[in-house]
Amino acid sequence: MTSPNQLVLIDCPDRTGLVHAVSGVLFRQGLNIVRNQEFVDRDARHFFMRTECAGALDQAQVNAELTRVLPAEACVRIAALEPKRIVVFAGKEPYCLGELLLRHSYGDLHAGIAAVISNHADLEDLVRRFGLPFECVPQTGLEHAEHEARLRPLLERYAPEYLVLAKYMRILTPEFVARWPRRIVNIHHSFLPAFAGANPYGQAFRRGVKIIGATAHFVTDALDEGPIIAQDVTHVDHTFSAAAMAQAGRDVEKLVLAKALRLVFEERLFVHGNRTIVFD
Amino acid sequence: MTSPNQLVLIDCPDRTGLVHAVSGVLFRQGLNIVRNQEFVDRDARHFFMRTECAGALDQAQVNAELTRVLPAEACVRIAALEPKRIVVFAGKEPYCLGELLLRHSYGDLHAGIAAVISNHADLEDLVRRFGLPFECVPQTGLEHAEHEARLRPLLERYAPEYLVLAKYMRILTPEFVARWPRRIVNIHHSFLPAFAGANPYGQAFRRGVKIIGATAHFVTDALDEGPIIAQDVTHVDHTFSAAAMAQAGRDVEKLVLAKALRLVFEERLFVHGNRTIVFD
Amino acid sequence: MTSPNQLVLIDCPDRTGLVHAVSGVLFRQGLNIVRNQEFVDRDARHFFMRTECAGALDQAQVNAELTRVLPAEACVRIAALEPKRIVVFAGKEPYCLGELLLRHSYGDLHAGIAAVISNHADLEDLVRRFGLPFECVPQTGLEHAEHEARLRPLLERYAPEYLVLAKYMRILTPEFVARWPRRIVNIHHSFLPAFAGANPYGQAFRRGVKIIGATAHFVTDALDEGPIIAQDVTHVDHTFSAAAMAQAGRDVEKLVLAKALRLVFEERLFVHGNRTIVFD
Amino acid sequence: MTSPNQLVLIDCPDRTGLVHAVSGVLFRQGLNIVRNQEFVDRDARHFFMRTECAGALDQAQVNAELTRVLPAEACVRIAALEPKRIVVFAGKEPYCLGELLLRHSYGDLHAGIAAVISNHADLEDLVRRFGLPFECVPQTGLEHAEHEARLRPLLERYAPEYLVLAKYMRILTPEFVARWPRRIVNIHHSFLPAFAGANPYGQAFRRGVKIIGATAHFVTDALDEGPIIAQDVTHVDHTFSAAAMAQAGRDVEKLVLAKALRLVFEERLFVHGNRTIVFD
Repeated sequence: MTSPNQLVLIDCPDRTGLVHAVSGVLFRQGLNIVRNQEFVDRDARHFFMRTECAGALDQAQVNAELTRVLPAEACVRIAALEPKRIVVFAGKEPYCLGELLLRHSYGDLHAGIAAVISNHADLEDLVRRFGLPFECVPQTGLEHAEHEARLRPLLERYAPEYLVLAKYMRILTPEFVARWPRRIVNIHHSFLPAFAGANPYGQAFRRGVKIIGATAHFVTDALDEGPIIAQDVTHVDHTFSAAAMAQAGRDVEKLVLAKALRLVFEERLFVHGNRTIVFD
Repeated sequence: MTSPNQLVLIDCPDRTGLVHAVSGVLFRQGLNIVRNQEFVDRDARHFFMRTECAGALDQAQVNAELTRVLPAEACVRIAALEPKRIVVFAGKEPYCLGELLLRHSYGDLHAGIAAVISNHADLEDLVRRFGLPFECVPQTGLEHAEHEARLRPLLERYAPEYLVLAKYMRILTPEFVARWPRRIVNIHHSFLPAFAGANPYGQAFRRGVKIIGATAHFVTDALDEGPIIAQDVTHVDHTFSAAAMAQAGRDVEKLVLAKALRLVFEERLFVHGNRTIVFD
Repeated sequence: MTSPNQLVLIDCPDRTGLVHAVSGVLFRQGLNIVRNQEFVDRDARHFFMRTECAGALDQAQVNAELTRVLPAEACVRIAALEPKRIVVFAGKEPYCLGELLLRHSYGDLHAGIAAVISNHADLEDLVRRFGLPFECVPQTGLEHAEHEARLRPLLERYAPEYLVLAKYMRILTPEFVARWPRRIVNIHHSFLPAFAGANPYGQAFRRGVKIIGATAHFVTDALDEGPIIAQDVTHVDHTFSAAAMAQAGRDVEKLVLAKALRLVFEERLFVHGNRTIVFD
Repeated sequence: MTSPNQLVLIDCPDRTGLVHAVSGVLFRQGLNIVRNQEFVDRDARHFFMRTECAGALDQAQVNAELTRVLPAEACVRIAALEPKRIVVFAGKEPYCLGELLLRHSYGDLHAGIAAVISNHADLEDLVRRFGLPFECVPQTGLEHAEHEARLRPLLERYAPEYLVLAKYMRILTPEFVARWPRRIVNIHHSFLPAFAGANPYGQAFRRGVKIIGATAHFVTDALDEGPIIAQDVTHVDHTFSAAAMAQAGRDVEKLVLAKALRLVFEERLFVHGNRTIVFD
């Protein structure tokens, strides 16, 4: 069996010679560069580089050498390109969760699902069909903080690297979110123009929108305002009821979520400010 | 030379037998139905019908007969399917205007451009190339109302049926808009999510959006909130500067505007509340 | 419990007064037209009409009355808008089948899956997860006709109205196909430009295509040349290996198949010559 | 005035250390790398690199140094990122040509149009509107070779770097094409599935296609089979006549052509075998 490829992820203020310096470190380590992508944000004068290497990589040594050649502010991550361990949060809607379970069962998710946690019991059957643990933590009568306190031991037990919100309809507290920086991925509908408030598909219907979108993003304190990972749209028209619009929206949502997770789990993303750099 | 087809456009509260009643009127007039489209908005219980007929149509008689068989609240329009007469309002950006001028020169616009009016002189050359009147009405130092007062005699002289705002960047007053109900078409960028305020492409860039859209709509008092006629999107990524995003946006804008104008000029739209019913 | 809506589907040579005549029949029967769509193919001079009615419908009587008012060549179908009974044919690829099983489990398929039949055992586990019969009929060493002879008793037992080929990779004989006219739906990849022969994704890769498509169609004698039900595409680029292109293709294929099945099962299609008229 | 950026374009068999070696050469020349993109085709074991540099570049010296560090088979191009000089070939259809003329007039084409050459006089007016030379070389009664012999002095006089076929409907001889390797860009419609032979939109109509595409490619001996530069599609349905399908096709064609030309004129493409590597 071959060992997995290694990833070297670097972002730092831009300056001349960075590509040369980094590729020199990897070259001297005898690493074979399988894929190298870099990008310079000209306005922010910031450099991003994702390198996939084959070969045995001495992490401490590479790190030390990179530190020597890179600016002091550089952020370096070295990691094996291995499936991530995740927990999926779900609510009552089976669509996104179903997509993830199916892809997981085909080995197409780039991650292992350790468990599904839900505030409702509705999706237990679906999860059991795929032989995975389903943890129901009802929220009835609980403040957000109390409810999250009950989630915490489960997260400790299952020890995921990432949390995926697959139409989990409860807002997470800033305290909870702060514990998982850039580690929670959410999916939600988007519209042109956008709608705030309740029943967005009802609003979209009354506004007569012709396009329905979905946005996958990292969860931050600012609700649904975290860095965008992936987006896509589908076309609708006046013959779509609000319900039909919601149904069309679901098909986009599940594919956009799946695409976003591939990008995240294969470490193809940098977050800079509120933007993402995506090395697809 | 054959006479143009005739359009019968009806919208009214729904009730049983409407299709039968209307088609009976047209049948008894000896009209040949070339294309018939109807739609019932189930929630609003409202009926929409667009019928394209070949043959000589006695407008007064058809109107009288339809009035007899339709609900009292029915709105009936009978019109020949002929090119509209329009005036285009432009600013400094040539992209949308250029698209319209080209299509006009090919006979692809479904309308005759009577004149182009602008608050700037920048696009005079472009318009002259196509042998069309260009009227520059500078806005410098003028209140909106004053400026519009200078536009009015031009509109009286050119007598357009529709006004098309091809990146005309000055807001029209409610008084002006009220004189052209559902007769002013505007195009603007849209984003997932949406951005309010100045420099939207700068905001879109900083937010790292992956999709840029364009929306064509009728102008109403509510700025950029009028009924949506057409929408489309294009994909962008982190390698797009704010300027490149704006450029990508322009290509969508011009095509969406052209599509919207075809729908409007061929009378393929009903507006109901803030929604459009589009019989494409 | 309310009874399901009734569908009246008519296609016949076009002539004046058809809409009036048909709507008169339905009106006199006291039926409430929920949705009415018609289309005239101007070149072929052919008329298509799909009417969805609420209310008790005396099928024999409506049929008799329609026969009286329609041209002799008219084809009339009257049917309740009810879920279809289907059998899915699968091979070794789980992607399309998985999508159908999931939608079936949500009640989103507009059909009941009576059984899954495969020439391989690979997908048995997946099907069992959803509690559905899985029938494996190996093809090893069997001529097409022999293999199909073993399928026939299963089809008799499960008595489906439609067969869905969810990446079933064996060609069906003309004799088999002839027994299921417009009753077998297939999905396959499509390319711009197209490729014939083996390993199409390998060919697409070597040709450097930028777009991968999927086409769902009715199966006819002419392999993959039956009437097109639905199509869609996804974008790829030079960074996609042949395998990555195939993976991107799968996501389009499964959604296009699901869309096509909705159109077929809700009887939204007419086939005329080799074209489909789709009343979406 | 600042001097234009310089491009270094390299493709060669892959081996370890290439990025390091090339970036070393540029670094030692004191060049500032504005944008660097590379790609390794894993199957073909071939390396592609496009580097955009700011600063004065001594072409001979960089070339010499690169030759020293690269494999013997390496292909190196060094060029200033400047607008190309082009000649457009047109026929009778104004759509693609009009798009190019407009973009040219906005400074949006990344090229200067030296002249438009046509085998018909139809588009002379359109070209004159934009103040550009129009050369009509009728083909009536002329063999291909004879006709091309009359084109040659014009091409010598206008001395273009690239030829753009904007719906020029005459096939070029292999001898002509051979003189412009990877220097002729063509645009044509594409379908899912594809159609050969005359009147493709008629065929697409009769086949009931739901998607119409456009492909821009380099012209090679194999008609319409050269390396693909860009592709896109638009959706159609049964209500589109063959003429309406052709019209929808035109809007895609003109945008795909414009996109392809940007890629070509900014030297964002490598051709390898029959594939293109596109550094967008």
